[in-house]
Amino acid sequence: MTLHDPAFADRAVLIVHGPDQPGIVRAIADLITRNKGNIVSLDQYSSDYAGGDFFQRVVFHRADLVTAMHDLRADIAATVEPFGMTWQLRDQSVPKRMAILASKSDHCLLDLLWRHRRGDLPVTIPMVIANHTDTAEDVRSFGVPFFHVESQVGPDKSQSEAEILKLLAGNVDFVVLARYMQILSGDFLEKVGVPVINIHHSFLPAFIGANPYRKAKERGVKLIGATAHYATSDLDEGPIIEQDVVRVTHVDTAEDLQRRGADVERAVLSRAVLWHAQDRVIRHGNHTIVF
Amino acid sequence: MTLHDPAFADRAVLIVHGPDQPGIVRAIADLITRNKGNIVSLDQYSSDYAGGDFFQRVVFHRADLVTAMHDLRADIAATVEPFGMTWQLRDQSVPKRMAILASKSDHCLLDLLWRHRRGDLPVTIPMVIANHTDTAEDVRSFGVPFFHVESQVGPDKSQSEAEILKLLAGNVDFVVLARYMQILSGDFLEKVGVPVINIHHSFLPAFIGANPYRKAKERGVKLIGATAHYATSDLDEGPIIEQDVVRVTHVDTAEDLQRRGADVERAVLSRAVLWHAQDRVIRHGNHTIVF
Amino acid sequence: MTLHDPAFADRAVLIVHGPDQPGIVRAIADLITRNKGNIVSLDQYSSDYAGGDFFQRVVFHRADLVTAMHDLRADIAATVEPFGMTWQLRDQSVPKRMAILASKSDHCLLDLLWRHRRGDLPVTIPMVIANHTDTAEDVRSFGVPFFHVESQVGPDKSQSEAEILKLLAGNVDFVVLARYMQILSGDFLEKVGVPVINIHHSFLPAFIGANPYRKAKERGVKLIGATAHYATSDLDEGPIIEQDVVRVTHVDTAEDLQRRGADVERAVLSRAVLWHAQDRVIRHGNHTIVF
Amino acid sequence: MTLHDPAFADRAVLIVHGPDQPGIVRAIADLITRNKGNIVSLDQYSSDYAGGDFFQRVVFHRADLVTAMHDLRADIAATVEPFGMTWQLRDQSVPKRMAILASKSDHCLLDLLWRHRRGDLPVTIPMVIANHTDTAEDVRSFGVPFFHVESQVGPDKSQSEAEILKLLAGNVDFVVLARYMQILSGDFLEKVGVPVINIHHSFLPAFIGANPYRKAKERGVKLIGATAHYATSDLDEGPIIEQDVVRVTHVDTAEDLQRRGADVERAVLSRAVLWHAQDRVIRHGNHTIVF
Repeated sequence: MTLHDPAFADRAVLIVHGPDQPGIVRAIADLITRNKGNIVSLDQYSSDYAGGDFFQRVVFHRADLVTAMHDLRADIAATVEPFGMTWQLRDQSVPKRMAILASKSDHCLLDLLWRHRRGDLPVTIPMVIANHTDTAEDVRSFGVPFFHVESQVGPDKSQSEAEILKLLAGNVDFVVLARYMQILSGDFLEKVGVPVINIHHSFLPAFIGANPYRKAKERGVKLIGATAHYATSDLDEGPIIEQDVVRVTHVDTAEDLQRRGADVERAVLSRAVLWHAQDRVIRHGNHTIVF
Repeated sequence: MTLHDPAFADRAVLIVHGPDQPGIVRAIADLITRNKGNIVSLDQYSSDYAGGDFFQRVVFHRADLVTAMHDLRADIAATVEPFGMTWQLRDQSVPKRMAILASKSDHCLLDLLWRHRRGDLPVTIPMVIANHTDTAEDVRSFGVPFFHVESQVGPDKSQSEAEILKLLAGNVDFVVLARYMQILSGDFLEKVGVPVINIHHSFLPAFIGANPYRKAKERGVKLIGATAHYATSDLDEGPIIEQDVVRVTHVDTAEDLQRRGADVERAVLSRAVLWHAQDRVIRHGNHTIVF
Repeated sequence: MTLHDPAFADRAVLIVHGPDQPGIVRAIADLITRNKGNIVSLDQYSSDYAGGDFFQRVVFHRADLVTAMHDLRADIAATVEPFGMTWQLRDQSVPKRMAILASKSDHCLLDLLWRHRRGDLPVTIPMVIANHTDTAEDVRSFGVPFFHVESQVGPDKSQSEAEILKLLAGNVDFVVLARYMQILSGDFLEKVGVPVINIHHSFLPAFIGANPYRKAKERGVKLIGATAHYATSDLDEGPIIEQDVVRVTHVDTAEDLQRRGADVERAVLSRAVLWHAQDRVIRHGNHTIVF
Repeated sequence: MTLHDPAFADRAVLIVHGPDQPGIVRAIADLITRNKGNIVSLDQYSSDYAGGDFFQRVVFHRADLVTAMHDLRADIAATVEPFGMTWQLRDQSVPKRMAILASKSDHCLLDLLWRHRRGDLPVTIPMVIANHTDTAEDVRSFGVPFFHVESQVGPDKSQSEAEILKLLAGNVDFVVLARYMQILSGDFLEKVGVPVINIHHSFLPAFIGANPYRKAKERGVKLIGATAHYATSDLDEGPIIEQDVVRVTHVDTAEDLQRRGADVERAVLSRAVLWHAQDRVIRHGNHTIVF
């Protein structure tokens, strides 16, 4: 059963984007007013008001939202589609369902579980899937189901991926790779059908690929970082949601970088997950708009 | 003669704020559409959609803006004043006129002059007024008039302040205190009639008053900072526009703190000035909304 | 039984401080060489080589350290005490014993327990003492004893403090107040006889006292922070070990500040605890030297 | 005539590095004591006390230093060379002579000149060489000679480089490329015979090569940065001295990134130059030790 958060009762979040053109802001404002909505917050961005791309996120309160959803959707479609806009409407009181994929390391995984328990992440967590069992007991202590799927079952990874897909199918709204140390195939990313957020342990595009902390030590950088991005079939090339760095010195060993980087990784990932859960992130080509 | 910046030709910025209530967003969107404006950017914030305060900054393009200004103003007043809103409309191609008050130290002063020369500050600088002559030659090398007004001419500061007021009167849209080491009277702040931005050399409200770097050294803090705020008759208590900090250690002497703080001061002040010049800062009681 | 960490086997850390004077560096280097030590790392600081204060932290490797400790101590005393220096020698393979005092909130507490389990904090944790029972199960899941001591048992807090002192006596090398929401008396701090580290939820000296996030919201600051310091009988006035800040905006409510501040608090506290555990922090009057 | 800074009178800085081995710290401490030096500050780092590399920077006061220099050098050589160590001794009161190479953009150049005039950089600036004349007047207003050398005089750059080398020869201790937009040949870097510090407008190793801000915009990063490094014949691959970043958003255009990056560039370069001037930076292979 899906949980409903009373704090967000009767609040909807509407995302609209498409080619910018005169009148679109007024059309959306009209739409909300005539549907008895009160605007709670509104963010918009246009890459160029003349011929650019337009993005708007508006949160509005509408008494008896659940009953109104059907008519709202119809009116939104009739209003913004003639402008060539795509749109998405969500009831904010329905938390998104987030699956976490993990391996051995626990820092990103536990941080998400702990923030969720604290009430700081508006999601439900129907499952954690890991290719190692190290974190099983911790995960279950948070009341979250833990499924073990080995990284390779048959001759290649396809059987493992199929097993993961079967677990996820219909059960989740997005997937978080919390330092999941397997490369997911393009086929998997296509079939999963929901956004997949990955945390990369470097400030991309620096140190693409494996062992970024070792590479950072070898290059002698003075800052190390982490990057949360949507996973795409181009490894480490997906749209960046959030990045941060921390200062290091010649004294830090590669192990120190890894340990200090872990703090940046979990901070960056938790912000990216929060923003995604709040519908603050809009993908646009290889970029993100973060409201 | 006022300069007109062609990059911003036919662009207006409208600020509206007042008690939040249903329909205000639509009313403003309608207003801009019926006045043939195209929205370039729109930011809004509401402290609470039910009974809170509403703030909107909208930049729009309107062909032949200068001609339309008069009618625009009338229509804005007729539209938003019934909502109990206050408003302000500016032609973005007309840079604000900024006076700088300085003393001996040059770091904030020269940084503003240099950013202006580079084209990074959309202002004109009709004058620098200082109570010391140390910076006169530098100021004039930027083509900016320099006026020397001693901090005290007669028995108290009132005559000096009167002289400064006379220089400013009618000539400037805002005043920047670029490490001006005199306390301006409440009377001055009232008479000057334009916003006054000050840079305080600490992360307020820590180390209020004189000698913040010495106090910071004595307290053994690990971060020092600077704060740009609107000057009010309550010293160091005005609405904060921007703050930043830099990390220090036990090795740093009070002089080191002062030298390193100078970099934070000029960075913080330049951001506050830029945002004020772009009408991004709205004062609200003792707070600021920075879009 | 005290744990011994093989990674630090045969490593000693020596702290020396006192009035700076010629020859002290050579005397310590001589001392280590004649005791068959190899210097692993050396940090020193002098507030003024002529008449200032001298601080040195030197880590050295000495085969069969345990056997040599007694003679080492005698030689150190004979060497540095004639210079008027105080000193401290520790076997780095013996982790310090850390007690944690907590209340209801879990973020600092769990972060320390988790870092410890990961092997990132060179301490043992013989106990957590809390005046609420909310975190008992979590604490015990880390294999750490949890003791509940109500904040007030009799007519005042003295009986509670006595109970805490009895639990700590002889069992711990330092105490961490992980958002412990009770003010400890000067009497307690005197009797406890070991360093006490507190985390204050503001960038001291701003917002001293209760409810710093509410005060920060009221003042409209653009940065909020946290401060780890040694607790003294002057509330919020003890020597600062570490501070950090995070950027906030007008959009953040007091609750948002509190939630975002929690991340800064746990990060700042964990760094302070790590450095204290590694003997990197030297108290000097109301200041700290952090190597 | 070389300037002598009285604040650093009778202070020497000694850098020693080589294979770590027992007794080296004592040997250096002995050396300084027997030469009547008082240690002002001492920093050291060893990559591994058993078989690693050892680095020490020690500043000491020695009355009548100038007279003692000759004997000091002889004693240092006799003391540390048997350990296989290389060393360098400098009289801190003799500022290093810094040449600046520039092109059209003024932000890094003017920032260095201004910091120097303020007394914040312990260097002399015998010349600025530029391949454009845009900054000539500004440079000369600081009392610094300006030489114009076109980027290409004959069929290739060799004649230009020869002209620059002739101006520099014997006159400078290091060279700073303050956004000098020409690639210097390996031949030039070899012949110049002094360290060359470059500022790269990205957080290396990300966005190597030309147009990093455009590439950053295309990649959609959330942080942009700058890197100061020693120039080597491998473009953008030299040892990194300092790096920093600033947060950007989807709203920032490539021009905004460039403008905001300029602030990071000048801050990073000024720190790298200061540390180099103070002999705080030791090159070691492709890394730097920054004390």
